[in-house]
Amino acid sequence: MPKNAISPTRSENYPEWYQQVVKAADLAENSDVRGCMVIKPWGYAIWENIQRRLDAMFKATGHENAYFPLFIPMSFLEKEAEHVEGFAKECAVVTHHRLEPDGEGGLRPAPSAKLDEPLIVRPTSETIIGATFARWVQSYRDLPILINQWANVVRWELRTRMFLRTAEFLWQEGHTVHATSEEAEQETRMMLDVYATFAEEAMAMPVIKGEKTAGERFPGAVATYSIEALMQDNKALQAGTSHNLGQNFSKAQEIKFQSQAGELEFAWTTSWGVSTRLVGGLIMTHSDDDGLVLPPRLAPAHAVILPIYKNDAERDIVLPYAQSLKAELEAQQYDGEPVRIRIDDRDLRGGEKKWQWVKRGVPLRLEVGPRDVAGEGVFVSRRDTNAKGQGTPRAELVATIADTLVEIQQGLFDRALAARQEATVEIDSLEKFEKFFAEGKPGGLVWAPFVDGPEMEAKLKELKVTARCVPLDEQSGGTPGLPTGSGSGKCLFTGAATDKRAVFARAY
Amino acid sequence: MPKNAISPTRSENYPEWYQQVVKAADLAENSDVRGCMVIKPWGYAIWENIQRRLDAMFKATGHENAYFPLFIPMSFLEKEAEHVEGFAKECAVVTHHRLEPDGEGGLRPAPSAKLDEPLIVRPTSETIIGATFARWVQSYRDLPILINQWANVVRWELRTRMFLRTAEFLWQEGHTVHATSEEAEQETRMMLDVYATFAEEAMAMPVIKGEKTAGERFPGAVATYSIEALMQDNKALQAGTSHNLGQNFSKAQEIKFQSQAGELEFAWTTSWGVSTRLVGGLIMTHSDDDGLVLPPRLAPAHAVILPIYKNDAERDIVLPYAQSLKAELEAQQYDGEPVRIRIDDRDLRGGEKKWQWVKRGVPLRLEVGPRDVAGEGVFVSRRDTNAKGQGTPRAELVATIADTLVEIQQGLFDRALAARQEATVEIDSLEKFEKFFAEGKPGGLVWAPFVDGPEMEAKLKELKVTARCVPLDEQSGGTPGLPTGSGSGKCLFTGAATDKRAVFARAY
Repeated sequence: MPKNAISPTRSENYPEWYQQVVKAADLAENSDVRGCMVIKPWGYAIWENIQRRLDAMFKATGHENAYFPLFIPMSFLEKEAEHVEGFAKECAVVTHHRLEPDGEGGLRPAPSAKLDEPLIVRPTSETIIGATFARWVQSYRDLPILINQWANVVRWELRTRMFLRTAEFLWQEGHTVHATSEEAEQETRMMLDVYATFAEEAMAMPVIKGEKTAGERFPGAVATYSIEALMQDNKALQAGTSHNLGQNFSKAQEIKFQSQAGELEFAWTTSWGVSTRLVGGLIMTHSDDDGLVLPPRLAPAHAVILPIYKNDAERDIVLPYAQSLKAELEAQQYDGEPVRIRIDDRDLRGGEKKWQWVKRGVPLRLEVGPRDVAGEGVFVSRRDTNAKGQGTPRAELVATIADTLVEIQQGLFDRALAARQEATVEIDSLEKFEKFFAEGKPGGLVWAPFVDGPEMEAKLKELKVTARCVPLDEQSGGTPGLPTGSGSGKCLFTGAATDKRAVFARAY
Repeated sequence: MPKNAISPTRSENYPEWYQQVVKAADLAENSDVRGCMVIKPWGYAIWENIQRRLDAMFKATGHENAYFPLFIPMSFLEKEAEHVEGFAKECAVVTHHRLEPDGEGGLRPAPSAKLDEPLIVRPTSETIIGATFARWVQSYRDLPILINQWANVVRWELRTRMFLRTAEFLWQEGHTVHATSEEAEQETRMMLDVYATFAEEAMAMPVIKGEKTAGERFPGAVATYSIEALMQDNKALQAGTSHNLGQNFSKAQEIKFQSQAGELEFAWTTSWGVSTRLVGGLIMTHSDDDGLVLPPRLAPAHAVILPIYKNDAERDIVLPYAQSLKAELEAQQYDGEPVRIRIDDRDLRGGEKKWQWVKRGVPLRLEVGPRDVAGEGVFVSRRDTNAKGQGTPRAELVATIADTLVEIQQGLFDRALAARQEATVEIDSLEKFEKFFAEGKPGGLVWAPFVDGPEMEAKLKELKVTARCVPLDEQSGGTPGLPTGSGSGKCLFTGAATDKRAVFARAY
C-alpha cells in the first residue's frame, strides 16, 4: 500500500496535488470542450448538498427562485459601461441559429441563418434580469423584489482549473430591487452574512467578511463585499461576493418606481453569488495527502460500510449484518436529517475499495467481517484524523455516530481556523510586507494599513499580491484571533495616515 | 366582479385562453430574447416541486446526477447521421469568444476571437455525454452507468409558446449505458413507467404509454416510447419520452467494453427526458375559465390564508388568529410532508386579492375576518369545484385538511380521465377517421389499426393528424376505459391486415 494515496503531496506540488485529489476523489474531469468540466456524480452530490442548504437559507431570508434566459442580446451589455469592460472580453457569442452541410461532408454555420443581433451566453445576468425587473416594478408597493436563480454561466477564461476557474460553471445569482439605498445596503450585507454562515457552518471553512477595494469591485457595483478563505498553500480564495449596485443598473435598465410621495425614482439593486468554486475551496481547505476530506454536513455519505468476506458462507453472515447496521444507523439523526450511509459491496479487493473511500473523503469507514459479526462489533476508521481504526461495539457506534459527526465537523473548522491564524500577520511597513511575500517565503494573510489608489495597485501588481478585502469590524469580535479592519496607522504604500486596514494575500 | 377571471374563455379561444392563464397566474412571461421565457416565481415553484419529486424517483431507481458541458463541438453532431438531421437545423451556434468595440459606439464579435470549431448550445446531450461515457467504460464491471442531468437546452424553434415550446427550456435528461440489449430495453421501459406514474400521481394527468411510430422516433433511436396526455381542447400532448438508442450512439461515440467473455463489444445506451413542457400540460389539463387549477401534490401552497379586517383594532384580532391557524395547519402532514400554507396580508382590496389566488390555482382559500375569529371558524373555498365557500369550524378544517387535499388530487385525476374517455373512440375505417378529424369537429383520441409506412404518413399529413403512439398492451388492464394496443384489424390507410393499433390525434 502506498504511503500516501495522492502523488505529488501538498508540500511537493500543491497545484498538481489539487488536480490529483479531484481525480482520485472522482469529483470531476476535463471535457471535450475547452475549459468546460464534467462534474461526476460524487462531485455533483456535494454541489447538491451545497445547493439544498443555501437554497433553504435564501428562502428563509425571503427570496424566491425564478429563471431567466441563458442568452443576453449584445446591446444589453452596452448599456452599463463598466459592465461591458468587465465581461465583453471573455464571452461566448452566438451568431447563427442553424448549421448546414459545408459541401465537404461536414457542417458549417448557415450564412442564411445569421442573427440580426448576436447573443451572449450569460456571464452573469444583471442586464437581462434588470430589463425584466423594469417591467415588474411600477410602484413602491412592488418592492422589494427578492429573486434568486440557480443557473449555468460562461466566462471565456484562458487558464482554467477544475472547480476554481472554468469557462462554464454552475452558480446561484441573487438579484434584488429596493426602494431605498439603505435597504439595498442592508440586503447586500445580509447576504454576505448568509454566505459567511454557510461557509463556516456547512463547509467548516473560516472566512473573513469584508469590502473589496475599488480595483476589485464588480463591474458596475457601488460596493462589493466578499468572503475570503485561506487555503493550505497560504493563498486566499474569494468564496462568495455580494454587490450593492446602487442605481447604476436601474439607470441603465430603466428600473423606476413611483414612490410613496408620488415621485418617479430609480430603484436600488443588489446582486450576490456563489458558484461551484466553493467545491474547490472545500477541497483545498480540508484535504490531505490521501485525498479528499469532507465535512460531514456536505458529505454525500456520512459513512460507508465495507463488508469483508472470503466466501459465500461468510457473505451470508456479513451482508445481512451490514444491511441491518445500515438501517439502524440511518434511523439516527444528524444535522436535522437521517444519517447518510452507503454499503459498498462491489467485487473489488478490500484494500483497493478501502482506499477509494479514503480518497473520496467519506467521514467514517465501517468495516465488517465475520469476526465483527460474531462479536457484535464494527471496525471504525475516521477520515479526518486518519488515526488507526478501532474495533467498536455496534451499539456504541449507533449511539455515538451523530456526536462523532458533530465532533468531526467542528474539528475540521478548528483545524482550518488554527492554520489561518498561524498564517496571519499584522504588518506596518512596506519593507516587512515585501519580505513576507518574497519568493520562497510561505506567504499568508497580511493585515496592513492602506490608502486605496494607484500607488498601492502598482506595488501589489509588482509583488503579485492582491488586496482581498477591508474586513468588517463587526467580525473581529465574532472570529477569534483576527485583528480589526480599522485602527489608525500609516498606509504601507503612500505613507499617508489612514484608519483603514485591508487583508492582503496571493490569491486564486 | 367579472363572471370569469380569464378572457377569452376556453370555448371562445383555447390557445389565447392558455396564454392568459399563464399571465394571470403569474407563471411566466416572454423575455427580451426571441423564444426564451422568464419563469416567474410561482411558475418556478411548480417546476421545483416537479423536480424534487422526479429526482427522488430517479434516485430510488438507482440513478445519480451529474453535469456535462453546455456546449457541443460541431463535429460531434456529425457523427450520428440521423441526429444531425434532427438537430442541426435549429440550434444556437457559438462562433466567437470575445466582443470588441465596433468603432461606432457599439460592439461586435471580435474577428480575432473566432473559434476554430464552432460550438453548439446543447439541444440534447447524447453526443457530449456519449463521448464522456466512452472514457468511463472499459469493462462490464463498469456497467451499468445510470446518470441523470438537470439542465437547460436550446432548440431554435420558430413558433414558440410559453412552457409548451420555447427556444430555451429546462429539463432533465437521463443517459444510461448497459452491457446487453435486454437491459437497455428494460431501462427504457422502467423510466417510461416512472414518467407515467409521476404524470398520473403527481400531476393528476392520465397518460397513455406507448411506442412511437418510425416517423416520430427520436433521431438516432431504435425505439422511442412516450407518455401522451389529452388536453381539454382534445389535442394530445407528448409529456415525456424514453429512448432505446441500441448501439447507434455507442458506435458513433466508441463506447466499448470488455465483456465477461473477454470480447470487446459496443455498449447499449438509453436516454429519457421530461421538461418544463410538463407545466404546460398541467395548465391545460386542469385549469378553467377562472385561471390555473393546481393539483395539491405540485402546488407551491396548499392553502392561502386571507386575513380580512377594516381597521387596526380588527387587524389586531385577525392577524394573530391567522398566524396561529397557519402554524396549526402546517403541523398537519399531507403526502409525507407538512401542509404548505401562506398568509397574504398585502395591502390590497379583498376582492382583488381573492381573485389573484383563484387565478393562481391554490387548492384552498381560507378567509378569516373578525366574525370567524369570534366563532372559531374559517371561511373555506375550494378551487377545484369552485363551489360556494363554506364557514367551517377551525378544528374541523385542521382535522380534515389533509383528507381534503387527497380528495382534490383524486378528483382532478378522475375528471381528467373522464374527459379523456369521453373523447376517445375506436375507429375501423378511413372514412370515419376523416369525419372524426374534419374541420369544426371536436376531435379527440382515435384508436385504430394501422401499418406504419408512407401511405399513413401522407394521409396524416393531409389531415394534420399525428400517430401519438402504439399503446403498450399492459396498460389496458391498468387504465380504465382504454382499448388495447393490439388486436387484429385492417390498416385504415392501406387496407392490409394488421394486429397493431395506434392512437391518433391532433397534437401540440
